[in-house]
Amino acid sequence: MAINRKLRMGLVGGGPGAFIGEVHRKASRLDGEIELVAGAFDIDPKKSQQMGKQLYLDPKRVYNTYQDMLKAESALPEGDRIDFVAVTTPNNWHFPIARDALKAGFHVMCEKPMTLTSKEAKELQTLVEKKGLVFGLMHNYTGYPMVKLARDMVKKNDVGKIRKVVVQYPQGWLATALEKTGQMQASWRTDPKQSGAGGCVGDIGTHAANLAEYITGLKITDICAELTTFVPGRALDDDCNCLLKLEGGAKGVLHASQIAHGEENNLAIWVHGEKASLEWHQEHPNYLYVRRPSKPEEVWKRGNDYVAGYSAAAARNSRIPSGHPEAFLEAFANNYTNFAETVKSAIEGKKPDPLATDFPGVNEGVRGMLFIETVVASSKSKQKWTPVKK
Amino acid sequence: MAINRKLRMGLVGGGPGAFIGEVHRKASRLDGEIELVAGAFDIDPKKSQQMGKQLYLDPKRVYNTYQDMLKAESALPEGDRIDFVAVTTPNNWHFPIARDALKAGFHVMCEKPMTLTSKEAKELQTLVEKKGLVFGLMHNYTGYPMVKLARDMVKKNDVGKIRKVVVQYPQGWLATALEKTGQMQASWRTDPKQSGAGGCVGDIGTHAANLAEYITGLKITDICAELTTFVPGRALDDDCNCLLKLEGGAKGVLHASQIAHGEENNLAIWVHGEKASLEWHQEHPNYLYVRRPSKPEEVWKRGNDYVAGYSAAAARNSRIPSGHPEAFLEAFANNYTNFAETVKSAIEGKKPDPLATDFPGVNEGVRGMLFIETVVASSKSKQKWTPVKK
Amino acid sequence: MAINRKLRMGLVGGGPGAFIGEVHRKASRLDGEIELVAGAFDIDPKKSQQMGKQLYLDPKRVYNTYQDMLKAESALPEGDRIDFVAVTTPNNWHFPIARDALKAGFHVMCEKPMTLTSKEAKELQTLVEKKGLVFGLMHNYTGYPMVKLARDMVKKNDVGKIRKVVVQYPQGWLATALEKTGQMQASWRTDPKQSGAGGCVGDIGTHAANLAEYITGLKITDICAELTTFVPGRALDDDCNCLLKLEGGAKGVLHASQIAHGEENNLAIWVHGEKASLEWHQEHPNYLYVRRPSKPEEVWKRGNDYVAGYSAAAARNSRIPSGHPEAFLEAFANNYTNFAETVKSAIEGKKPDPLATDFPGVNEGVRGMLFIETVVASSKSKQKWTPVKK
Amino acid sequence: MAINRKLRMGLVGGGPGAFIGEVHRKASRLDGEIELVAGAFDIDPKKSQQMGKQLYLDPKRVYNTYQDMLKAESALPEGDRIDFVAVTTPNNWHFPIARDALKAGFHVMCEKPMTLTSKEAKELQTLVEKKGLVFGLMHNYTGYPMVKLARDMVKKNDVGKIRKVVVQYPQGWLATALEKTGQMQASWRTDPKQSGAGGCVGDIGTHAANLAEYITGLKITDICAELTTFVPGRALDDDCNCLLKLEGGAKGVLHASQIAHGEENNLAIWVHGEKASLEWHQEHPNYLYVRRPSKPEEVWKRGNDYVAGYSAAAARNSRIPSGHPEAFLEAFANNYTNFAETVKSAIEGKKPDPLATDFPGVNEGVRGMLFIETVVASSKSKQKWTPVKK
Repeated sequence: MAINRKLRMGLVGGGPGAFIGEVHRKASRLDGEIELVAGAFDIDPKKSQQMGKQLYLDPKRVYNTYQDMLKAESALPEGDRIDFVAVTTPNNWHFPIARDALKAGFHVMCEKPMTLTSKEAKELQTLVEKKGLVFGLMHNYTGYPMVKLARDMVKKNDVGKIRKVVVQYPQGWLATALEKTGQMQASWRTDPKQSGAGGCVGDIGTHAANLAEYITGLKITDICAELTTFVPGRALDDDCNCLLKLEGGAKGVLHASQIAHGEENNLAIWVHGEKASLEWHQEHPNYLYVRRPSKPEEVWKRGNDYVAGYSAAAARNSRIPSGHPEAFLEAFANNYTNFAETVKSAIEGKKPDPLATDFPGVNEGVRGMLFIETVVASSKSKQKWTPVKK
Repeated sequence: MAINRKLRMGLVGGGPGAFIGEVHRKASRLDGEIELVAGAFDIDPKKSQQMGKQLYLDPKRVYNTYQDMLKAESALPEGDRIDFVAVTTPNNWHFPIARDALKAGFHVMCEKPMTLTSKEAKELQTLVEKKGLVFGLMHNYTGYPMVKLARDMVKKNDVGKIRKVVVQYPQGWLATALEKTGQMQASWRTDPKQSGAGGCVGDIGTHAANLAEYITGLKITDICAELTTFVPGRALDDDCNCLLKLEGGAKGVLHASQIAHGEENNLAIWVHGEKASLEWHQEHPNYLYVRRPSKPEEVWKRGNDYVAGYSAAAARNSRIPSGHPEAFLEAFANNYTNFAETVKSAIEGKKPDPLATDFPGVNEGVRGMLFIETVVASSKSKQKWTPVKK
Repeated sequence: MAINRKLRMGLVGGGPGAFIGEVHRKASRLDGEIELVAGAFDIDPKKSQQMGKQLYLDPKRVYNTYQDMLKAESALPEGDRIDFVAVTTPNNWHFPIARDALKAGFHVMCEKPMTLTSKEAKELQTLVEKKGLVFGLMHNYTGYPMVKLARDMVKKNDVGKIRKVVVQYPQGWLATALEKTGQMQASWRTDPKQSGAGGCVGDIGTHAANLAEYITGLKITDICAELTTFVPGRALDDDCNCLLKLEGGAKGVLHASQIAHGEENNLAIWVHGEKASLEWHQEHPNYLYVRRPSKPEEVWKRGNDYVAGYSAAAARNSRIPSGHPEAFLEAFANNYTNFAETVKSAIEGKKPDPLATDFPGVNEGVRGMLFIETVVASSKSKQKWTPVKK
Repeated sequence: MAINRKLRMGLVGGGPGAFIGEVHRKASRLDGEIELVAGAFDIDPKKSQQMGKQLYLDPKRVYNTYQDMLKAESALPEGDRIDFVAVTTPNNWHFPIARDALKAGFHVMCEKPMTLTSKEAKELQTLVEKKGLVFGLMHNYTGYPMVKLARDMVKKNDVGKIRKVVVQYPQGWLATALEKTGQMQASWRTDPKQSGAGGCVGDIGTHAANLAEYITGLKITDICAELTTFVPGRALDDDCNCLLKLEGGAKGVLHASQIAHGEENNLAIWVHGEKASLEWHQEHPNYLYVRRPSKPEEVWKRGNDYVAGYSAAAARNSRIPSGHPEAFLEAFANNYTNFAETVKSAIEGKKPDPLATDFPGVNEGVRGMLFIETVVASSKSKQKWTPVKK
């Protein structure tokens, strides 16, 4: 049965001062397919209500706890209640909220990392499969159209067998002990109880690993890692350097850092295949550099007909003409819009458009936890290579 | 009286296949302060209804004509009816729709150019003043935070007295006779009846002129222009080169083109003052380059504390942390959000935050029409300099 | 008769503290085909001798005046005496030295501008033709291999009929009254007696014009110019903006400045043809950007096989493999080495390799003087267009 | 005793078709302080003579073997004979030639890598110390002025204690089995007998390691390396990825490759200290990027007064004004010119200017061999870290 309305979102997290919750709200609004109608925005009920008012929500649907929300929304008639739950709390809450939302029968869009451990991640994986619900994981960087173009170039064998991947994610915002100033983002991200076993590796290293696996279509099989904590007194790593082995004999280098002064969000990837090399930079996301032997370097630019002609995914995940730059929020919104279309198909009992299902989900969440755990284990090991468990 | 709800927008234009109407919709959604509730989307009523359905609108508020919309919405109770009208039709419709909406007592957000002639533009200017309504004109490029930073550097006299401005806006999409293929954007933009007396100069030259006046705070006083139509059979210019004089003795160069193969939307500006030089590029909008004598070049990057500490406007018109790029839609949305806050203040009978009033309006619309008319006149003249009328 | 030795150069100018004379020395040494054996380096004979000693020259061949050099060298046996004279004095000396050298039967390599007036320039032109000697003019920027590649793309009609050229040359070094501090370069360049009628236009505007004519193969036919002197008390213009008409209906914009803080030597050109667009930047000279409709942008990089396969000139004027950047001195040296090979052929009575004759000469010198004179006349005129005389 | 003449160079290697020998010739000519007077250019005496003729040398000083050259030149009177020997043969000849030249009392400029083993390297080190001769090793990349500026920023503690270094050197020219086509450069570089135990690591990885140690002033103490041979049938590695530990607790990532299609000579380094971060790229060598907390990024540009005021070394190793780019050959020439001045001081019995002694020598040669040997050992090891021997 076709539904002719926006999908209804219930948001957990995103209270006053939060960063990523507001990004989820903006991104989910952009294409007009999703409507925020309920939320449990903050541990503090007053702040939750304050945020609800700011968002012009019906106060009855602003809840004190996520449990209240799940219960009350479940009790609403099907046409009224939320269609899915978005989870944007600190990391330690991702697992219980996502699990309980799934158990209550809601589709879920979850911030990364999905859980604190691979055990929890696999539990979610099993639950999603069992319930047949749609699960999105916000590895937002694979939402960029030029990343999808790169992935399609690999898929179509225009890059050839992959030999080498270099992926980096340097930042500088934790180069000093920012967490000691009370800065909220810094505080929970450097606290193992809220963030899990990985600091830099968990927060941004996972994005780098996810990007590499997404574009190449190859899984990382072995890791040789060195985690370092440069800022005295910090409980988690703030720097992460890895050598990688990937399926099919490819080799890799992954380095991420939070102590690189002046670096902002410099996620970038280089993929070297037998036929061509690719290069992409998150801070200049509208360009994909393609290099082939004995040819001028090619700069593929988002929004052009030659991009659309090559990659249906790049075209679909692009909104405005070339030269009008698109950026972070649009990539984020691509995951939401694809997720929403997939949820809609599920509600309508239809098979989703395969292009709509191109967003990260529970499997990427498991991969992420395995990556973090392997890096932490490898960093403590004297052996060069630590295999990634399955 | 404080209102606690989203502002209600009625949209004229933006039917199936339109470009800029959809941009207005996306941008107006982003910050959750505006709700599209009514529209007359297309000359063809069927297409208008089709678009309304796609947007999940109440079919009763999807109108066949903009006149119907103004009449019916005016008849709704004040809490229900639209707060403002957004105009995103081809150029020739801007004036009558904006005029009628103002006369009907609605605030207006209008695509540029505001009208087809300076006479019409001044008529609107008078009407806006008389009615005391809020009027926004979508010169979207001044919505970029780093453009506001540049403007503030000039204002604070850190650039010194302006000596020279170079501004460019090359595009390549009309390098062939695209209008003869039936492409909708190309067709009306090269048709004097729908676009007015200027082709390239009207479509993009005005953006360049507006950007130069916005950043420098100086009006262009004299123009020496050369318009050319390179594509055979085209009725309007597709290339525009000007020498400029600005207030205070500054000199300028402005060049725009639609026949520069492979150029996309390469609006860029260089401002040279007695103390420093500035450089900004629309396709890489998160960076402002500042050059001072005997100092390393400075790259100011959006979203940083040193930007916020310098320019309240740059900070306010920025959403996400540095290194997470913002782009075209966010700049566009800045104009909408500032406009909406100003409209809200007007409805509430409050004086708006001066930072909220930082969006282009009817005065910029008059300047735009005077610019186009002067360029067209100068291009036909044998005299070097043609003064810009007041 | 084949000669198996380096060519012998006599240098006028390039005394202690001079800039361009030392550049000529370095560039002429690079390929091992030219040997500096004599010179009149400075107006002050002591300084001339001092420079000669520093250069390890035979003191007998270090002269007090250029006249002495011409006389004494002419008296030496043919195998011993200099083969050519290089002129690197302030502008006002270029003409008499070049003329006298030609009259004495020497080939000449002359710094630009060739003379102070077009009348003198034409006199030299006639003299060169009459004498049958080789004359090089150091418009060094056309010595860059990627400039030659661009020229060849136009020649082979891969750019199509030229529609528009934009060429710029911003600098910032004269943004303050540097000449009043006694800085030698600034002093003579802002002095009409030593520099001629053009300041910025003569010093760097001519390079921009020469580059545009070289790449497009089209002559500038009409100019609409605005010269400005921004720094109070300066006798010559320090800013130059022009609209251009070129042969075949092409239009152009040329702007140059010496008051653009922080700009160094930012000569750059954009050529827009019916088939493709080209872009090149002097400060990043190893790259040529090529844009064709509906294709990714191409970045052609110096030293690659695909460059060599396309342009024999680009290959010939390149020394080291791709990715090992070449720069200013190498481009300068290309002019010297091509000039030297042409001189050698002349001495040997052979027809030179056509690729060797690809260096600017007396015709470019005449064009340069006509350009300066037209710009100065146009800047004073109230008419929009001033034709370039022939 | 002051000598007033160019220094005399005897060159071994650099026969017809050789790449690096010709670079040595060009670079040594540039500043007019060195004269090539003798050579043994090729294993094939005919080719050696052919090259000598092409270089306009006295045929009597063109030798069949380097041994002949050393013997004959030693027999010449001191004012006549060569002052130093330059070694530009394939790697396997570096050691015996350098050793014999030193034993014969000549100063030596040697291409890198200095030897095939660390044992040989230390033998040379001892010999140089014993003989008191000047020994230069052509790690040319540290000749760039902006590299010296970076080094000085570290030295002056403006970067703070170093935390992390990332250095890369990707190339693409060996992405296919070029050595099987008979290409000379590819053939000897992939042959262990001529190149030693390292392929990619020896050819370019050593440059990356040398650059990191030069700028940071820290020695690499431990290496975790993965060497790979991607091209089937190749005898040496063509890809090299390493994690590093450096003195003082700094961590590092070094990756180099010869299979990265389209990469040319993309040596680049990022240094992250407690106070600031630095970034430099060999292919854009005139810029040093400096990032400090809460400040705009700074772009330091070669040739400016603020560079000269900060770093005497950067100023000294720079030839032309800012914006006139300098590049590879100039950096190469810096090593030659500093070496030459040091040799001259040695001949004159004077203490050299400390700035003149800023060129790589025998100690860097030993470090290079230890680096290669450690990488090769680590790559074979199952242990994560292999210490670098002393």
